[in-house]
Amino acid sequence: MPNSFFPAPVENLIDQFARLPGVGRKTAQRLAFHIVGMSDEEAEAFAAAITAAKSRVTFCKTCLNLSAGDTCPICSSPTRDRSQICVVSDPKDVAAIERTSEYRGLYHVLHGVISPLNHVSPDDIHVKELVSRVSAGGVQEVILATDPDTEGEATALYIARLLRPFGVRVTRLAYGIPMGGHLEFTDELTLGRALEGRRDI
Amino acid sequence: MPNSFFPAPVENLIDQFARLPGVGRKTAQRLAFHIVGMSDEEAEAFAAAITAAKSRVTFCKTCLNLSAGDTCPICSSPTRDRSQICVVSDPKDVAAIERTSEYRGLYHVLHGVISPLNHVSPDDIHVKELVSRVSAGGVQEVILATDPDTEGEATALYIARLLRPFGVRVTRLAYGIPMGGHLEFTDELTLGRALEGRRDI
Repeated sequence: MPNSFFPAPVENLIDQFARLPGVGRKTAQRLAFHIVGMSDEEAEAFAAAITAAKSRVTFCKTCLNLSAGDTCPICSSPTRDRSQICVVSDPKDVAAIERTSEYRGLYHVLHGVISPLNHVSPDDIHVKELVSRVSAGGVQEVILATDPDTEGEATALYIARLLRPFGVRVTRLAYGIPMGGHLEFTDELTLGRALEGRRDI
Repeated sequence: MPNSFFPAPVENLIDQFARLPGVGRKTAQRLAFHIVGMSDEEAEAFAAAITAAKSRVTFCKTCLNLSAGDTCPICSSPTRDRSQICVVSDPKDVAAIERTSEYRGLYHVLHGVISPLNHVSPDDIHVKELVSRVSAGGVQEVILATDPDTEGEATALYIARLLRPFGVRVTRLAYGIPMGGHLEFTDELTLGRALEGRRDI
């Protein structure tokens, strides 16, 4: 037995787990052993869930969010406000905003941010699709909700400039001190943003 | 959309991942998205690895280690010393000892330790199988390599007592200061064990 101390199928499963992001060799081993200890039905259900998530999930043809059909539940919902589009970089951000229950408009998922360092140009993310949605009319506001880091900011600025000719309102989320946070422990960039974005009460 | 912000197959996969030990909701979400972003072949390979690890792996009928066949490679190897049996609580411990390349005997995997608090009695772990291996003859030494915690110690003592009538040598791994460790930072239990187990040089 050279390097493999477990049966080949177990070693293979450890390899598969270890390939997942943030999963090291030790964790992969622990997860693989857990699978081996599962009942047959549980393991089957897990394997089937992977296959189903891969084969049955596509992207909504309108907003590019994850969807089980051609059009996602948000885009096809009659109760959503079609005059607002919230632009995010990732489907996870849609989930984060939906959890607030504060937003009733539509989304547009870019699937990335512009990042010259990582060779991601505007053509590599779904900016074109956003422009054609706006140019089709009916949109009054585009909310740019990319992350407040260098790349997210650059992407927001780029899109804002691109949308200027269409005369729609383009907004950006408010950035400042998080609720429950303390001035004392707030970094100077955030505090600067909070000052800049101050409002009358 | 009440609580699910992702298509059902994605939510289902997140649930599956979240059921794994040490995987929280956020990590499960990250892993599920990683699967969705995989190529079809990669996802298929992952699902197949789970099914294979579950369906093709059983326990060696002799030592109860994980095995792809009836008898594990260690038990069927002609080069291993059949007069030594190293008793461990878990297949992972077999891997740990094999990595040292210091041991050429056989193993016996208990699949647990005696733990009255968790309702694990001697009948729930594979002690009986060990006794019948020893009583079958040919065994000269049984090395008890359960963890040096309360339950591991109790299990080792229990097995040692059980094996006394057979007249085999029963040993326990040495416990003391780990290599590269410092006296100063060694806890008193370990240091006590190190003193107790001191050897002539």
